[in-house]
Amino acid sequence: MPTTRFPLKPLLLTALGLRLATAALAQQKADYPIQAVSFTKVKLADNFWLPRLKTNTDVTIPASFQRCEATNRVKNFEMAAAKSGKFATTYPFDDTDIYKTIEGAAYSMQLEPDAKLNAYVDELIQKVAAAQEPDGYLYTARTIDPQHPHAWAGKERWEKERELSHELYNAGHLYEAAVAHYEATGKRNLLNIALKNADLVCATFGPGKRAVAPGHEIVEMGLVKLYRATGQPRYLATAKFFLDQRGQYKGYDPKSPDVWKNGAYWQDHQPVVAQKEAIGHAVRAEYLYSAMADVAALTGDKPLLAAVDSIWQNMVGKKLYVTGGTGAASDGERFGQNYELPNATAYNETCASVADVYWQQRMWQLHGDAKYADVLEKVLYNGLISGVGLDGKSFFYSNAMQVKNAADLAHPEAQRSGWFDCSCCPTNLARLFPALPGYVYGQQGRDVLVNLFVSSTADLQVGKEKVQLVQQNNYPWDGGLQFTVNPARATAFNLLVRIPGWARGEALPTNLYTFAQPSAAKVEVKVNGQPVPYQLRNGYAVLPRKWRKGDVVTVTLPMEVRRVVANPNVREDLGKVALQRGPLMYCAEWTDNQGRASNLIVPPTAQFTATYKPEMLNGVTTLTATVPAVQVNEATSSIQTVQQTLTAIPYYAWANRGKGEMTVWFPAKVVDVDLVTRPVVQKEEKK
Amino acid sequence: MPTTRFPLKPLLLTALGLRLATAALAQQKADYPIQAVSFTKVKLADNFWLPRLKTNTDVTIPASFQRCEATNRVKNFEMAAAKSGKFATTYPFDDTDIYKTIEGAAYSMQLEPDAKLNAYVDELIQKVAAAQEPDGYLYTARTIDPQHPHAWAGKERWEKERELSHELYNAGHLYEAAVAHYEATGKRNLLNIALKNADLVCATFGPGKRAVAPGHEIVEMGLVKLYRATGQPRYLATAKFFLDQRGQYKGYDPKSPDVWKNGAYWQDHQPVVAQKEAIGHAVRAEYLYSAMADVAALTGDKPLLAAVDSIWQNMVGKKLYVTGGTGAASDGERFGQNYELPNATAYNETCASVADVYWQQRMWQLHGDAKYADVLEKVLYNGLISGVGLDGKSFFYSNAMQVKNAADLAHPEAQRSGWFDCSCCPTNLARLFPALPGYVYGQQGRDVLVNLFVSSTADLQVGKEKVQLVQQNNYPWDGGLQFTVNPARATAFNLLVRIPGWARGEALPTNLYTFAQPSAAKVEVKVNGQPVPYQLRNGYAVLPRKWRKGDVVTVTLPMEVRRVVANPNVREDLGKVALQRGPLMYCAEWTDNQGRASNLIVPPTAQFTATYKPEMLNGVTTLTATVPAVQVNEATSSIQTVQQTLTAIPYYAWANRGKGEMTVWFPAKVVDVDLVTRPVVQKEEKK
Repeated sequence: MPTTRFPLKPLLLTALGLRLATAALAQQKADYPIQAVSFTKVKLADNFWLPRLKTNTDVTIPASFQRCEATNRVKNFEMAAAKSGKFATTYPFDDTDIYKTIEGAAYSMQLEPDAKLNAYVDELIQKVAAAQEPDGYLYTARTIDPQHPHAWAGKERWEKERELSHELYNAGHLYEAAVAHYEATGKRNLLNIALKNADLVCATFGPGKRAVAPGHEIVEMGLVKLYRATGQPRYLATAKFFLDQRGQYKGYDPKSPDVWKNGAYWQDHQPVVAQKEAIGHAVRAEYLYSAMADVAALTGDKPLLAAVDSIWQNMVGKKLYVTGGTGAASDGERFGQNYELPNATAYNETCASVADVYWQQRMWQLHGDAKYADVLEKVLYNGLISGVGLDGKSFFYSNAMQVKNAADLAHPEAQRSGWFDCSCCPTNLARLFPALPGYVYGQQGRDVLVNLFVSSTADLQVGKEKVQLVQQNNYPWDGGLQFTVNPARATAFNLLVRIPGWARGEALPTNLYTFAQPSAAKVEVKVNGQPVPYQLRNGYAVLPRKWRKGDVVTVTLPMEVRRVVANPNVREDLGKVALQRGPLMYCAEWTDNQGRASNLIVPPTAQFTATYKPEMLNGVTTLTATVPAVQVNEATSSIQTVQQTLTAIPYYAWANRGKGEMTVWFPAKVVDVDLVTRPVVQKEEKK
Repeated sequence: MPTTRFPLKPLLLTALGLRLATAALAQQKADYPIQAVSFTKVKLADNFWLPRLKTNTDVTIPASFQRCEATNRVKNFEMAAAKSGKFATTYPFDDTDIYKTIEGAAYSMQLEPDAKLNAYVDELIQKVAAAQEPDGYLYTARTIDPQHPHAWAGKERWEKERELSHELYNAGHLYEAAVAHYEATGKRNLLNIALKNADLVCATFGPGKRAVAPGHEIVEMGLVKLYRATGQPRYLATAKFFLDQRGQYKGYDPKSPDVWKNGAYWQDHQPVVAQKEAIGHAVRAEYLYSAMADVAALTGDKPLLAAVDSIWQNMVGKKLYVTGGTGAASDGERFGQNYELPNATAYNETCASVADVYWQQRMWQLHGDAKYADVLEKVLYNGLISGVGLDGKSFFYSNAMQVKNAADLAHPEAQRSGWFDCSCCPTNLARLFPALPGYVYGQQGRDVLVNLFVSSTADLQVGKEKVQLVQQNNYPWDGGLQFTVNPARATAFNLLVRIPGWARGEALPTNLYTFAQPSAAKVEVKVNGQPVPYQLRNGYAVLPRKWRKGDVVTVTLPMEVRRVVANPNVREDLGKVALQRGPLMYCAEWTDNQGRASNLIVPPTAQFTATYKPEMLNGVTTLTATVPAVQVNEATSSIQTVQQTLTAIPYYAWANRGKGEMTVWFPAKVVDVDLVTRPVVQKEEKK
């Protein structure tokens, strides 16, 4: 039996009165061909990620709980239990910040046990349980004072679920947290609450019962997780039912170009199987697409599979920023038109990157192609981790592609903030970071797949043999990867090492971005020091071998500085280049470049040098080159180009040293200048 | 009796069976306090205007008639007479090109008799008469084949008048042409057709009958002209009825921001008396506002007067380009938001400038304040005459404020075209130019007002005395104005000479544009060589005197080069200056400036020299200064500022020497540059 992402604990399940989940899984007709190796089986030892995860554990999660207390999010649950008081925060979905932080804490405790945290979480879970109504309904915005619910909640349960209430969104995050907490700790206190709520949801919604396309998707993913954890078909059936409700509501105006009026904002404009393009609110969309992949895998639904494949092709081919960010338009936090990828006004919600990681992982489990992991890696190393500061307690809601002081359309969020009134992004990061070990490996029978290059030790099982797989590297700074294979005894299986698209000359699996020049360097693969020929299958170097303890595989990825150019349909980036080294996208920040960034030109002749700077930004490799820079003397209106050192840093590390200009895309050649006469406009940043 | 703009010919009117118009006028309870001196009383001798009017007579009008023939506009009338064939042009309002050119020809024949033209026009009028249905209906798009009318015409008469058919628009232009033709020639052949049609319109529309707010206004102005010509109250009543229909239709969505859905495109979103801002399609709007002024004057309707005053304040305070152009948005040829005056995408339809001249003249007749004439002069000398090339046969539909080769949003119309499929602008110019003599003078009892500085001889009557007034000047190039007063015998009256706002230090009567620096020079007024003190009333220098034959008034206007700055709310123009000398706005064109215009900076220190160049562009005063210019070397991406001679020409004269960059607004100081990487995009110009 392959190692599954969700290692079930039959005894506990029996104690819960549920039928044996192993039996349930055995009965499944279809599932993901590839199982991700569970986070419980992978122990990180990585210089890049471990400090981040430690900051998440030591700073982000405690700060998040503290803020849930300080901002009355916890109080809402206490008042719901007492059925007394007045909903004390802004949004009815504020409940989810607690669920998401519990989810992060659960994964964290798997990384490193923490009795105090464990006790605190149990205390919180008691408060959640107390706020649940007897029939399982759990939504503080109504329960506190059912006669005067939050304005978005509606007079009756569920009546505003389509557009406003987020009742099922809260449920979905509860289920996600409950399964993570159960997997990480083996405890069922939160799972019980989730199942009781899910049973109410299944009893309420379904054929012949109430119907709605949930306004903010995630309940679908959550129900699938409950199904996997329990084997109860009703959870899967209700997830599929919710998917099938999309495009059924008759109250929209299909001819309206307004995504709120035509339903596209909620992905409710068409039946899911008819949807072909990534559209509407990006976070909702990518949670939906994740659930589509889940349900397609579990049911073998071919039209659903075709739809989600088509949407992926559209998003990765036409709507993805070079940093992996998605959702170009701030108006509605949503996808733009095809190739509409503005820099100065890029929205790129951090939560959309989190959602995209979930989706890419599922697409990869469906198809086993490294291209999905390529996108996942791009998101992870760039547009996702940019969402949190190196301090672990400052966050971007949106992730700029450019900050330009002198333009009145400058990106509104040029600096991270501690907390948002709508706090989805910080808590979404808090739950994603410690789940990272679950994204490193996959397995399909006797194929062991390496997706991420993260120093770690994994305890696998291939057939009946235990196999330890040890990764050692200094990724993403160095391209030298080492894998030590330690089977308990000599075992034949295939080790599949992802050779990233960027190392094979592809900036992206689609033609949205390409490299300006072919690479001179080649990927090298050795086993025990000897170069080996290898088959490249779906982006993986396939290494079949009867592995013996201590066998060492080394893979060398070419780490030269690459210039990325965008598809000419992306008008914003015409004539520009972005800088990439390894999986990392780079940017220039004002503080390293004499106070500016938007005045730098990167001509084809510029020669870049990569230098690791251990003392800088917790250790980064910088790129430097001598380039032309434009200087404007405002007093005399004289303008000139001078030669100047451009210093670029990894995009994820920007905005940790104050606020100023930043750019990802650089002019490769200047054909003209627009003279800017407006005084510098400094907008107030969002709090 | 004051000289009226419409000198009535009682004998002819009696012959028409109409009651004496003089009697009708005597019965009027209210009218414009100020009467414009009729075009029939003013003989031009002006170096600036006479050549233009001659080109209009010799080139534009014949070319327009020729094109009406060649493009089947005349054929439509022949087919309507035969009730056979198929409507042969694009738009149902193509009939109006013939009416408008006849109107122009009529004014032209008043300037200079032309027997051949007279005969041709009579022939055309016969064709128009033959196309009129027995009950007066005249609309070739239906009459040719009533079973298969033009798609915009509707199955039944008038049914699509609100949004599409333009039946009443055609009628309005017919009335305008008919009155002009009657006034200029004394012939009633076209007037009879118009009256027959107007009687049908009055019988069809009105209280208890059919109601509509005409989709493209002008029938209201036209009906008022018929009322003035005939004294028939039904024409005025029907004009007022149409005004009162605005804001009555219930089929709009008042909450929609879409001007087509909320009715604002047609100025149909509110009752006219509730309208406070210039909104929607600019030409339609300004024809409406003209009719509002007409009806307010003739009925003394105070709410209507208050509405049109408020709209004027809004337009001149927030929606007027510095060239006098109106209608910023090409999408809908309409007014933008307050202060939304983009340069690269400015629309500024030529017809809107024509309509604005009509409106400003009426506002002036209402209030007698020179500020309306200031705006009229600005429109006339800049944004209106820019609509036609010096050749008299090339036309701008839209009038750019900036042409920038390297920007993809460059104005689509960088060069004039010979003819448009929708040909409203050329024929609107053809009718406005020869009517110019009617805009020079006004009279109110014993006040004789000089509005425009155009060399001419006017035959006035003050009280019972004949007074000849001779203007001699070299305006707009020189500020020296001379007026010789030749009463038949010594006569006391007030001569009021407009002292333009720009000469008194006001760039505009509102604070939308101001001068960057106060003027050092002063206006001087002399009578018979002696400086005289004068009262300044409503912008006029009031000169009361018992005038004797040969009395000479000289007025000297300061003609220094002025820098105009826009209200800071006009974001497009922040930090920029425009150049003005006299009434003329200037621009820089590529051909005088080493191939560029958008690279020029005009710092406060730049010293301008004005030089009259008789051989250039039919004679213009150019402005030159040494200024910084930005040079970009595309091959090396190096940028620098160099000192260069800026040569500016009058805005009206641009685009007569090929196509390239042009700008009206110049950076006064550069605070930054935006690096442009896109290749030059040359859009196909509109044909």
